[in-house]
Order: sequence, then structure tokens, then C-alpha cells
Amino acid sequence: MSIVVQKYGGSSVADAEAIKRVARRIVETRRAGHSVCVVVSAMGDTTDELLDLAEQVTPGPPARELDMLLTSGERISMALVAMAIAQHGVEARSFTGSQAGVITDAAHGAARIIDVTPGRIEDALGAGHVAIVAGFQGVSQTTKDITTLGRGGSDTTAVALAAALHADVCEIYTDVDGVFTADPRILPTARKVDVLSMEEMLDLAANGSKILHLRCVEYARRYGIPIHVRSSWSQREGTWIKDNPYQGEGAVEAPIIAGIAHDRSEAKITIVGVPDRVGVAARIFGAIADAGLNIDMIVQNVSVADAADTAKTDISFTLPQGDGAKGVQVLQGIKSDVDYHDLLLDDSIGKIALVGAGMKSHPGVSARFFRALADAGINIEMISTSEIRVSAVTRADQLDDAVRAVHTAFGLDSTEGEAIVYGGTGR
Amino acid sequence: MSIVVQKYGGSSVADAEAIKRVARRIVETRRAGHSVCVVVSAMGDTTDELLDLAEQVTPGPPARELDMLLTSGERISMALVAMAIAQHGVEARSFTGSQAGVITDAAHGAARIIDVTPGRIEDALGAGHVAIVAGFQGVSQTTKDITTLGRGGSDTTAVALAAALHADVCEIYTDVDGVFTADPRILPTARKVDVLSMEEMLDLAANGSKILHLRCVEYARRYGIPIHVRSSWSQREGTWIKDNPYQGEGAVEAPIIAGIAHDRSEAKITIVGVPDRVGVAARIFGAIADAGLNIDMIVQNVSVADAADTAKTDISFTLPQGDGAKGVQVLQGIKSDVDYHDLLLDDSIGKIALVGAGMKSHPGVSARFFRALADAGINIEMISTSEIRVSAVTRADQLDDAVRAVHTAFGLDSTEGEAIVYGGTGR
Repeated sequence: MSIVVQKYGGSSVADAEAIKRVARRIVETRRAGHSVCVVVSAMGDTTDELLDLAEQVTPGPPARELDMLLTSGERISMALVAMAIAQHGVEARSFTGSQAGVITDAAHGAARIIDVTPGRIEDALGAGHVAIVAGFQGVSQTTKDITTLGRGGSDTTAVALAAALHADVCEIYTDVDGVFTADPRILPTARKVDVLSMEEMLDLAANGSKILHLRCVEYARRYGIPIHVRSSWSQREGTWIKDNPYQGEGAVEAPIIAGIAHDRSEAKITIVGVPDRVGVAARIFGAIADAGLNIDMIVQNVSVADAADTAKTDISFTLPQGDGAKGVQVLQGIKSDVDYHDLLLDDSIGKIALVGAGMKSHPGVSARFFRALADAGINIEMISTSEIRVSAVTRADQLDDAVRAVHTAFGLDSTEGEAIVYGGTGR
Repeated sequence: MSIVVQKYGGSSVADAEAIKRVARRIVETRRAGHSVCVVVSAMGDTTDELLDLAEQVTPGPPARELDMLLTSGERISMALVAMAIAQHGVEARSFTGSQAGVITDAAHGAARIIDVTPGRIEDALGAGHVAIVAGFQGVSQTTKDITTLGRGGSDTTAVALAAALHADVCEIYTDVDGVFTADPRILPTARKVDVLSMEEMLDLAANGSKILHLRCVEYARRYGIPIHVRSSWSQREGTWIKDNPYQGEGAVEAPIIAGIAHDRSEAKITIVGVPDRVGVAARIFGAIADAGLNIDMIVQNVSVADAADTAKTDISFTLPQGDGAKGVQVLQGIKSDVDYHDLLLDDSIGKIALVGAGMKSHPGVSARFFRALADAGINIEMISTSEIRVSAVTRADQLDDAVRAVHTAFGLDSTEGEAIVYGGTGR
């Protein structure tokens, strides 16, 4: 008998009807002979409604109490899902993050899982019950306070439980059929991908794919948990994300391109006229790191001599838009030290990333990528590459055209032409 | 520094404005130098909304999951109250029933508190924080599952915590000024009572007064916790309920009448023509008790000989209306055994109870009570008395008149004539 962990997002449990539908699917899985542990998010808009209540009470709620408030959302959905399952004559027990043994650090609102001790879940599964666990939440190891995991939290809960339970698969249910070669909202001809390596999914998530959060994929890779992203509306196979799908038994050939991710949430800072001397980059990015800012791409041009014959260069980097102003402030603070000429903040950029394990062995991928953008009249502002990825920064308003052009250039457009409904995965 | 436990019901935390008002009162108490532990119910209609959700999912939700669902209500209100307090610069920490150490048996929906281990609350109070505790909920000692305490649960939580913390007082906040000589909705001239003994409050609660639940008063009496019932809308003193207020230092004279309770929630079963022989009453009420039915008053008439010269009597008793049909069923099951003539079920009865510690030393109270009812043209169907109480059963539609007549006959009508707004105390 295999152990299956299933995760249902907020849109899958949005109301009583949706909850009954999810319950039927869980009951089918249980009746097929599997041990089933289910992770649920809060119903639909519950989290927003609770945040609105908090806002009415105080403009700056303490993080501990905000976590206490928000975690009531999953408590409601998990109890309702357990009730709906019981209606079918199958025993189900709901558990809070704390009861399920999800132990975190004490960083309220963005806690990290540091251990999972799922004794009560194992007991429930051992008794033949379906275990329903609240996603997105845990309990602090040091303070014993209730914590939330932050963005993508429920997916991470599911993968962490799957690892602790030695589950055979972690199924992430969403309202699309799986991972697509590009966002179907931009590209209706995007195709569902059958299989991805952990590294490919990591690169897609890190570059803007919303279907799985980066932390969840990192966790799955570390513990070798296969993820199956699939629709809660159909029985079709979705996308499998596993270790080394392209080698060993049952291997498939690595496609050159696994998919295209895009991201409009970053800003670019350019430091103009930086003296080209040893230690300057270290000084700049040391200050940025000390301020707790996560940067993504960094590009430095070749240096040119200015009128006074001093070698000068420009350095650009990208970071989340919300951190842009703080980044500028940090750099202004070291202006006398670094002696640059000027700072430019640009939050109208877009980033496109082409990801595929197969590109390692296929020269010319970058060239074809740049050619596709050029043919579409799109200017490239920054370039970054890794073994299995090529990414570029463009103007934000040209990003959709860039995705379409590259998708077509690599022959990814579907010939089936089926209509695809796309949405977020909730928490 | 004294320890104060305050309990706020659902109407006191019904929305963001109400929560901010409650927070100001808590902050004032803390700033006056007291250690403050607050127990809250769920906001206004939250419990009904959650029950409605459960109903949409399944007609018969498992009790464990219903408790998991309902306890999210207090989680929301306690976090919001803690946030509103923090807004004033006072540190507050919210705790679930489980975190507060409220240990219960495993009877979901009607659990009884069997122990309180308030280590985390003591730590919070010791650090100068206000502790906010979810009322109505606990954790099962055996199963570690979340439980709810049933009706009056939040009041009981407050008194139990007050006992465990050795608090100086348990303040129960409601939307009336205290305990009244009668229900002000029936009798606008009812007066607020300044002080009551535990026994008087027990008798009032047992006979239909809704202001405090019987279990809460029993708990307070067992542990000697003074209760102060007062309005969350004013700073006025409410009603103090304490051990022996009528003796020792600071004693007040026991009033003949503390108040009048009434109850329209009971039904009467009459067993007609019961053979008057040894063991019959034991057989009847043994069967009723075995069925788990709680009975209240029992009256047996003197026996008269029937045509066959067998001594026969009629036995009447009252029980909750919801148990009426089951009571009839139980009695039908022993008909051949007991050999009675007929069964009558009447759920149009009302019960009025006159309570006062002072009536012990004042003969003639019962006589004046019956005279008042007779003068008002009200027929008495059953009578029951104890040392500090006289109660009578009337027709349900004559009950309000009965309360008014007795209130006036004992000179309880207020001469102030102030308008009183009356409402329930929530959970």
C-alpha cells in the first residue's frame, strides 16, 4: 500500500460544493487502497477577509497575532473537508500544523520548517483514516507559538509531510492540468509538459513560474519526493517532477526546452560610472546583502576610459520591485565610498527565461533565442545564462511578445489547440 | 498586584469597533496595575455561520470535526483583541484553549474541564503581558483532540482559569448591568441586584436565568471564585456573586428575595393512574435516568382508590422539551411492568422560581407567592420548594403575568424606572 500526500489549494476548497468535490476525489484515492494524507489551504477569499478584519482593528498588527488569526482559515477548511469525507463513510481526522508536527523557526509570517514529527498522522494513517492537515502553518520550536510559512506555504507543507511520511508521491492539485511550456494566459497554444527534472522546475520557479513555489521545489529536491502537479477538475495525468527523469530505467529523452518562464515583478538598478578597480563590486553587493535584499541577475559592462582617463564601468542588477527604493537608499549611503557617477532605478522591466536540461548538449540554443527576440523587434537589456537556462531582460510591455516569439521559435506551440483555463494555485 | 480574569461574550466582540472598545477597557485595567487574563467568545454570528457551512457540507458532521471547525471562531476574536491591545502599546499574547492548559474529557460538543495547567498564561502574566484566551474550548486529556465545552462554555473557561491562576475576581462582561430581580424584557421595572450568594445564583441559573450558566456557577462555588457580572458598556459596579456575602466582615443583610427566574423550555409528563405500591416510583425514574434524561420537578398526588378499590395515584415531572418524546417512549416501554393507565405530554408549561437566602428565616414567603398568583388569576399546576426557593409550574402563556405579579407582590419593582437593554451573554 502506497502513501499519497495530496494538496488542495484555496480555489479547490472555495465553497461547500468544491469541498464535496475534493472529498469525492480523496475518497476514491483511499478506496483504491492508498494511505492518504491531505494538505489544504484556507477557503477561497478567507485569508483576504481575515486580513481585512485585522486592518480594521489596527494598521500594524503584531506578527504573532496575525499568524494566530490567519491560521484559523485552514482550520475551517480542514474540518469541513474531514466532514465531507465522513459523509462517504470513510473515517477522516483533521490536524493543525502543530498537531501534525510541523516544527518551524520563530519567524512569524515567513517561518521555515526545521523538522516534521508526524506521529499523530502516522497513527491516523495506520488506523486506516484519512489525515487532513492544515497547510501554511506550523509551531515554533522555541516559543511554541503558531507560525505561518509565507508564500507557497501549503505546497511546502505538503512536500515536507511527504518527506517525513516517506510518501510515494506528493500530488499538488490546482486548476490547470499541470506545468505548461509557457503561461497559457499569454500563450493559448502552450503545451502541458509531461515530465520535468527537479532542476528544470527549480529554474522555472526561480524565474517567475507561479505553479509551484521555489521553496517547495527545493524541499522536494533535497528529499527526493516526486511531485505530481495536476488538475482537481479532471482525472488526467498532469506534470511529474522527479529526480533524473532523463536517465536510468523508464528514462525519457531530455527535451531541449522544458518551458519558458516570465516575470514582471522585478526592478533594475543601474550604477553608472563605477571606477573599475579591485573590490568595488564586493563593496557594492556586500552593502546590498547586509540590507537583506535578494538580487537576481548582475551584469557588468566592459570598462571604458572617461575624459580624465579613469577606467569606468556600469553595473546593473535586478531585485524585487518592492525592494527597489531600499536598494537605491543603500547605494546612496556608499556613494562617497564607491565614487560612482549616478544611479538609475527602472521598474518597467520584464524577464524571460528559457529552461531545459537538454540544452546542455545542444549548442546554438542561446543564438536561436536571441535571434527570435531580434526578429520580433525586442531589445535585450541584460543576459544571464546557466547550464540549463538562458534568460534576458526586456521592456515590461514587450514581455508577452517575447514569450510568444521564443515559444514559436523553439517549436513549442501545441497543434491540438485545446482551450486551457489557467489560474493561480492559492497559497 | 491582583490578578483579574475578564470574560467578554460574542456581542462584546461582534465587530472591529466593539473589539477596539473592549481593548480600551482591558488596557485601562492593566494600566491600573492589575495582571489581566481575558477570555473571549467568538465574534457575534461567527458560530452560526460556521454551523451553516458545516450544514452545507453534510447533515451529520462528526463531533470531533465540528469542534475543530467551531474553535476557529475564538481563534479569530482572540487574535484581533490582542492586536487591538497592542495598538495601545500594551503587550498582549493570545492562547488557544489547548495552549492555555484547559484539559477536558473527550466528550466533543459538551466536554467537561478536568484540569487547568496554565503555565504559559502564568509566564505571560509574569512578563507583564495581557493574556487572551479562547473561551469555550480545550484539549482532550486522552485523545489530544480539540474539544468544545458546550453551552455557557466561555463563562466556565473564565472561572476555571480564575481558579487555576488564583485570581482575585472573575469579571463576566455582558450587555446588561448585572443580574436583575427578573428578566427586564418582561419586567422593565426589574432592579439590578448588588450581591448574591453562590447558592442563590445557582438556583436562579438552574431555574431559567440566562445570565450565567449553571456549570460556571457550580465551578465558581467549588473553588470560591468571586464573580462580578457587569456591563461592557459602562464603568458601573454590576452584581457580585460570592461565598457567604451575608455573614462575616462586610456582610450585608440577606434579602428575602434575591430574584425571580423563569423558564419556558420545559415540558411536563403526567403518568395517570399509577398503582400506589412500593417500588413503582423507583422503577419509573430508574428507567428515565437510564435513558440519560434529566428531570427537574417531580410531583406525586395523594392516592385515591379506583372502582376496583386499588389505590392509584398520578405522577407528574418536568424535563427539557427536546427530551419529551423520548421520555414518553421510555415510559411506554415499561407500561406492562408499571401498569399505569395513561400518559400525558404537555409542552405548553412555564416555570417561575422565587429565590432568596433570606426566605429561610421569613415564614410566609410561599403563602404570599401563591396569593400573588391567585390574585392574578393564574392557576398553579405543580409546586416545588427548597430552603431558599419556591417554584411553580403554570401555563406557558401566563408565565409573564406570573413574573410581574410576584415581582410586585414582593416589592421588587424599581422606582427609578430606568430603561434597561437586555440581551443574551453569548456562549
